[in-house]
Parts: sequence; structure tokens; C-alpha cells
Amino acid sequence: MSKRLEPSEIEERLAQLQGWEFVDNFIIKSFTFKDFKEAFSAMTRIAFECEKMNHHPNWENVYNTLVIKLSTHDAGGVTEKDFKLAQTIETIFTS
Amino acid sequence: MSKRLEPSEIEERLAQLQGWEFVDNFIIKSFTFKDFKEAFSAMTRIAFECEKMNHHPNWENVYNTLVIKLSTHDAGGVTEKDFKLAQTIETIFTS
Repeated sequence: MSKRLEPSEIEERLAQLQGWEFVDNFIIKSFTFKDFKEAFSAMTRIAFECEKMNHHPNWENVYNTLVIKLSTHDAGGVTEKDFKLAQTIETIFTS
Repeated sequence: MSKRLEPSEIEERLAQLQGWEFVDNFIIKSFTFKDFKEAFSAMTRIAFECEKMNHHPNWENVYNTLVIKLSTHDAGGVTEKDFKLAQTIETIFTS
């Protein structure tokens, strides 16, 4: 079971990621793609990783935009699992 | 180009659909699935239809839940295109 991180720990880890913010008890990032097909393709790749990690995002898609919000429900806040998933998502986008 | 429908026209068409509501200039429905895999599989089927129709939803997924909001950006409101897509989504779920 993952432990909820303190805001100072969250800020420390966010410094190692590009474009993620800590808002309302989630770590959040917005992405913009060329079109819907590109956005949904990225979502599909992320979905497989989430399923493998058994850790799932709150996410919202509108045409070519995607907002991903990560938090650990059971822990009531952001945990290491969220940073692990954020890192995996970044790896997908830079691959 | 689709014409924005009047609220009375929207209500009339909603009466022919199961579980859709008119809220904040969108027609909206929430779906619940067994798990994330089922939810995302449904999204994938919907995504292909949207791409074919060139009409895309605002949608939000959290684990096994999916909220779909339809509106026609260019028309500034709900049009026949949204009802056509809602009908297609219903057909996917009942197939």
C-alpha cells in the first residue's frame, strides 16, 4: 500500500518532471496533439500501461486535448504510484 | 453545417434516447462498466465511430466510469450531429 506524500515531497518529485502540477490533491498535466486520432492513440498506449500497473488516471479528452489527473484513491492523495505512472506516461511521449 | 437546436427540439429528441440529459448546452450521459478495461474498450469502439463521423465528444473516464458530453462546437450548441452520435453510441452499447 502506497503512503500519501506530503506536499513538500510532491513538489520535490514534480521538479523532476516536465509540465506536471499539483492541483486539488492531484498531479495534473495537459497535452495537445495534432488531432483526435493522435490523442486517442496516446490514450490507448497509456491505457495499457495503466492496466499493467493496476493504477488508473482521471482523464478528460476533447478532440486533440487530453488532461491527465493522477491520485491514489486508497491513500486519499498523491503517492509514489502516481509519480511512477507520470514517469511512464512521459516515457511514452518521448519514445 | 448543422443548425443549433432549440431547447424544445432537444427535449423532444432526448425523449427517444435512454438516460441522456441536456445540461449546460451539452447532451450528457454517464456509463458504468465492470472495470477499466471494459470502459476503455467501449471508448475505443466509440472513438472509431467518432472519427468516421468527424464529430468528437468531450469525455471523462475514471476507472470504470465514463461521462460523455456532446455538443457541436461550430454551432455553439447541440445539433442533429450530436443526436446522431448519441444514437450510434447507444447502438454500440446494445450490440
